[in-house]
Amino acid sequence: MSKIKVGILGATGNVGQRFVQILHNHPWFEISALAASERSAGKAYGEVANWKVGTEIPDSVADLEVVTIDPKKIDADIVFSAVPSDFAKTVEESFAREGFVVSSNASAFRMEKDIPLAIPEVNPDHLGLIDIQKKNRKWDGCIVTNPNCSTIMMAVTLKPLLQFGLESVNIATMQAISGAGYNGIYAMSIYENVVPYIGNEEEKIQTESLKIFGHFDGSVVKNADLKISASCHRVPVIDGHTEAIWATMKSNPKPEEVREAFLKFDPGLSHLPTEPKHPIIVRDEPDRPQPRLDRDMGKGMSVSVGRIREGIRYVALGHNTIRGAAGASVLNAELLKEKGYL
Amino acid sequence: MSKIKVGILGATGNVGQRFVQILHNHPWFEISALAASERSAGKAYGEVANWKVGTEIPDSVADLEVVTIDPKKIDADIVFSAVPSDFAKTVEESFAREGFVVSSNASAFRMEKDIPLAIPEVNPDHLGLIDIQKKNRKWDGCIVTNPNCSTIMMAVTLKPLLQFGLESVNIATMQAISGAGYNGIYAMSIYENVVPYIGNEEEKIQTESLKIFGHFDGSVVKNADLKISASCHRVPVIDGHTEAIWATMKSNPKPEEVREAFLKFDPGLSHLPTEPKHPIIVRDEPDRPQPRLDRDMGKGMSVSVGRIREGIRYVALGHNTIRGAAGASVLNAELLKEKGYL
Amino acid sequence: MSKIKVGILGATGNVGQRFVQILHNHPWFEISALAASERSAGKAYGEVANWKVGTEIPDSVADLEVVTIDPKKIDADIVFSAVPSDFAKTVEESFAREGFVVSSNASAFRMEKDIPLAIPEVNPDHLGLIDIQKKNRKWDGCIVTNPNCSTIMMAVTLKPLLQFGLESVNIATMQAISGAGYNGIYAMSIYENVVPYIGNEEEKIQTESLKIFGHFDGSVVKNADLKISASCHRVPVIDGHTEAIWATMKSNPKPEEVREAFLKFDPGLSHLPTEPKHPIIVRDEPDRPQPRLDRDMGKGMSVSVGRIREGIRYVALGHNTIRGAAGASVLNAELLKEKGYL
Amino acid sequence: MSKIKVGILGATGNVGQRFVQILHNHPWFEISALAASERSAGKAYGEVANWKVGTEIPDSVADLEVVTIDPKKIDADIVFSAVPSDFAKTVEESFAREGFVVSSNASAFRMEKDIPLAIPEVNPDHLGLIDIQKKNRKWDGCIVTNPNCSTIMMAVTLKPLLQFGLESVNIATMQAISGAGYNGIYAMSIYENVVPYIGNEEEKIQTESLKIFGHFDGSVVKNADLKISASCHRVPVIDGHTEAIWATMKSNPKPEEVREAFLKFDPGLSHLPTEPKHPIIVRDEPDRPQPRLDRDMGKGMSVSVGRIREGIRYVALGHNTIRGAAGASVLNAELLKEKGYL
Repeated sequence: MSKIKVGILGATGNVGQRFVQILHNHPWFEISALAASERSAGKAYGEVANWKVGTEIPDSVADLEVVTIDPKKIDADIVFSAVPSDFAKTVEESFAREGFVVSSNASAFRMEKDIPLAIPEVNPDHLGLIDIQKKNRKWDGCIVTNPNCSTIMMAVTLKPLLQFGLESVNIATMQAISGAGYNGIYAMSIYENVVPYIGNEEEKIQTESLKIFGHFDGSVVKNADLKISASCHRVPVIDGHTEAIWATMKSNPKPEEVREAFLKFDPGLSHLPTEPKHPIIVRDEPDRPQPRLDRDMGKGMSVSVGRIREGIRYVALGHNTIRGAAGASVLNAELLKEKGYL
Repeated sequence: MSKIKVGILGATGNVGQRFVQILHNHPWFEISALAASERSAGKAYGEVANWKVGTEIPDSVADLEVVTIDPKKIDADIVFSAVPSDFAKTVEESFAREGFVVSSNASAFRMEKDIPLAIPEVNPDHLGLIDIQKKNRKWDGCIVTNPNCSTIMMAVTLKPLLQFGLESVNIATMQAISGAGYNGIYAMSIYENVVPYIGNEEEKIQTESLKIFGHFDGSVVKNADLKISASCHRVPVIDGHTEAIWATMKSNPKPEEVREAFLKFDPGLSHLPTEPKHPIIVRDEPDRPQPRLDRDMGKGMSVSVGRIREGIRYVALGHNTIRGAAGASVLNAELLKEKGYL
Repeated sequence: MSKIKVGILGATGNVGQRFVQILHNHPWFEISALAASERSAGKAYGEVANWKVGTEIPDSVADLEVVTIDPKKIDADIVFSAVPSDFAKTVEESFAREGFVVSSNASAFRMEKDIPLAIPEVNPDHLGLIDIQKKNRKWDGCIVTNPNCSTIMMAVTLKPLLQFGLESVNIATMQAISGAGYNGIYAMSIYENVVPYIGNEEEKIQTESLKIFGHFDGSVVKNADLKISASCHRVPVIDGHTEAIWATMKSNPKPEEVREAFLKFDPGLSHLPTEPKHPIIVRDEPDRPQPRLDRDMGKGMSVSVGRIREGIRYVALGHNTIRGAAGASVLNAELLKEKGYL
Repeated sequence: MSKIKVGILGATGNVGQRFVQILHNHPWFEISALAASERSAGKAYGEVANWKVGTEIPDSVADLEVVTIDPKKIDADIVFSAVPSDFAKTVEESFAREGFVVSSNASAFRMEKDIPLAIPEVNPDHLGLIDIQKKNRKWDGCIVTNPNCSTIMMAVTLKPLLQFGLESVNIATMQAISGAGYNGIYAMSIYENVVPYIGNEEEKIQTESLKIFGHFDGSVVKNADLKISASCHRVPVIDGHTEAIWATMKSNPKPEEVREAFLKFDPGLSHLPTEPKHPIIVRDEPDRPQPRLDRDMGKGMSVSVGRIREGIRYVALGHNTIRGAAGASVLNAELLKEKGYL
């Protein structure tokens, strides 16, 4: 089988580089186009990317010539979008209109009624919205989105708690600097400090969750009856969002039952290349999970949980630019491929 | 009026140095004795203290000869205790027995029925337990304790919320490294990391609060009917504990009403030298309070709050080794003096 | 004696805030004008300053109305300039022309032949250039500059080494983040990292030093015959530049002799309000000086040295925005006042 | 060919874990024994290691039972030693006596006359000392050591400069926290700080280099005629030592010639599994190398250089626990194997 050609929109940014990292040796996909701003177009990716995700830039992509973000310049079946959200609205629509499948990490289309906001381990059936979407919008292609980074970690861990009658959630996040992009936060702001504010983050967690856990009846998604209250904080960590979660459940399970539910959680997706062996890893040590030690578990795709206590309280952690961004979009694309949308 | 002589027990440690810093120019108190371990005794304080609280060590104390922690070696009316908690039980009792007033930051006696666990802005009447204590224990002196650092910040901000019928609290803390003492945490553990565990911290917050907000009927303190659930995390910050707090109140006040309550909060203690002009400072900027910018407000004695949102959610912040430790003990001592116990 | 009125140009920035901090209770000077960009003009300083230098903004200045950087808007005898260097050329000249004494921390005029590049402890006689300058330029006022931050720390410590026949210096700097201004460095660039490059910094150290140590014969300064080679690095420290210095001297002194020279160093300026008791503090502990512990010595005006070893090698440290910037300009102004230029 | 069995002494520490990481999929070697203190012996490695080197602990080693550090308990041809240096003297000798080849990262034997202090890219011929050693000591096995971490980075980059007549070196290091082991440095000591002292580090750099660059005439190594002067500093970086180096050379090469020498440097070892494609990587960007971005180059085995300026000054950087420790020992072992000592 020849590989499916994929393009990356916004390939030089923080999340764009993570896309390259995840896709360059992907068994199903092959990077055919790297698109970025006019400033970078026409130059070799290796020259303009200012590669900063730690490992060396793969030779096979360093030499690719960057193109502008234009459907006519890209030969691919699917494009992954890491463009800024204000820009995403028009860009992503233009690609969908031209027949591309767009797997987007941007927030622009997340809350639109006929656009799936999908996490394969949580609400894979929501991909069915694509059929509604195509009918509604008369696009040849389509758009699929994944939630905001901090929402994803939380949602993956809440999924196995639905069985206990999940009613409400309080979540305090301690989020990594990389979540704001390379140029998002000044050192004088965050070093030896905590900033108790991330623009729109609490709103995203609170509203996106309701759609993710909503019921899709074949035509619309009805929001879940959940109460989510978030308090978001930036902490001096490079990668990895930590979340302190209180989950109130009707059946009032004991910590041990919650632990069992996490351990048994198996969304049946292990055949997807980017799905980790354990989407949820349970840590029994008293002081885990920790971002520097646990963010790379499952190649950055596992969410680690620990400190499950009465309350129910627990701590969740995941890699924000992999599990919470690029990896989430790639996993969605793999599920799309499996379901025949690609 | 000549000043009251005070001793500091455990004067060389982190909190001990904060006691020195606060007391060396105090209008009512004068440091007459610095007590530490045998290893330091007999040497000049300046020589053994390994002074690390940023500002220069005051000349007037640098030359004081350190004595052992022994009631017979100390000429003072009150001693401030910053000794390790396991050691505090016998040490503090021996001083109280010998007639000293002991104002302790250690946890050893906090939960004992006849020992006040006091915050002047919150439960000044609990000092009345001293009379019960003296009768019970037949000590010439007495012991007064202040709560754990993270409990204090929270309690000061909950006090003005009692009027709304406070029922339950969820609190996620982001605590500074200095809270564990100079040698408490290895750099490899916390740098570029979050550690979601602090030994016994959650228990302290949950149990101490019930006593602090309990009703003192003249003979005993009856625990408050409150539900506190804490999740404690260490973050890479030198000084200053940040707390994300959800407070559920019977009368369900609006954020604006809560803000007003914080602004109007006046415990009537401004005549005490260590009491800041504003025990609670309300920040209206969207991204405050922050530990590096706000921990020193009110000479480290103010608790700053901000981000008051529906929920009611808000963020509180205070200096852990001043407001949350040495400053709290000194404020207790000032109130004792005023009430005639000194 | 009534106080001398002073203005601060660029009052809202990092160094501007340090000027306010140092000047607001100054015994000789009184802040009469705070000037900043058009955007801030007309508003209260407290409202626009976004105060971030740790301590609380002084009430007496918070209410001052900010004016534009225009000689006509300012009633003062001297202005302190913390404007960006590219802008400083025209701004500072306009003030000098209008009769103001300008004490500048900007680099624009530092290397001009008739402008003093002065450190009171090092080359106070260079202020004599002012007379030349006034004659040359026909200004009613004048401009005096202080060197770049990292140059100042080094120069203060090299001054007492001149007696040994100083020939050449290698210096490796480990510079604080605040040196680049609040918005100078992204957190992703410097956190858990070292950046071995600071634009123009090495050149400044290498060229400014030759002028500072040059001989002023009453009409011109002849560059010193010194060889300085610098390697500059940014490290994750908020304030305080650390410098590893190798000094080669003709008479090849022993470390103990160098230590003595540092201890005996007395520029005879202790009557100036901003001059610390010890312009050079010698630390004999094996692991000092350290930025977090020593940057505030002498209210941020002392340079701490330590680890004096064969080579001669030693480590120097000073507060970059006080000793290396705002404090340096204020000290120059105090010397100007004493010498009758004010 | 079946793999050579290897043991790791001190397998649970920081460097021990790096040995496991490098060796567990090694093409020539196979881990047959993990030895640690009595406390860990008898338990599964995964249970006691407290794995902290970021990636997941390999399943194949997690289940191995840890043994005590005793030649009788270990079935291997070669042992890698990461035991503390004070302990290494007797331990390593006991293994060499019992016939093991010991490739040691400890300092205990480094400076002994008949023990090679080897870096394959720098002085591979020094391995010839093994024959002298065996004759002298009548051991069945032998000991080979690698230098101290900061010495290795420097030495690799000085090797190609020998052709220019290297005479003297000044080196200022900015070293990572991990170099002191997990429990080596308290967070309160190094966070937002620089510590200008690392015990014995400067002496090691200065003396080890003379032996490394010494001439081996077939019986003894005569120290090189070099003058090395080091100033060592700890900075808040997790992994990766940065070094500012001044190299004085007889032929006074231009920066461009030095750059060429670095680029052309080829020790001819690319057939060794742990040797990176480029032992020296030249960065031409003005602000590289940087520890967080460059420490993992060549799987942590490349030394990156940059900022080659007149002086000659340049900046070198390498991963301290891989290139500077475990990787160095493994590379030595690979060369031993190739030369027939294994």
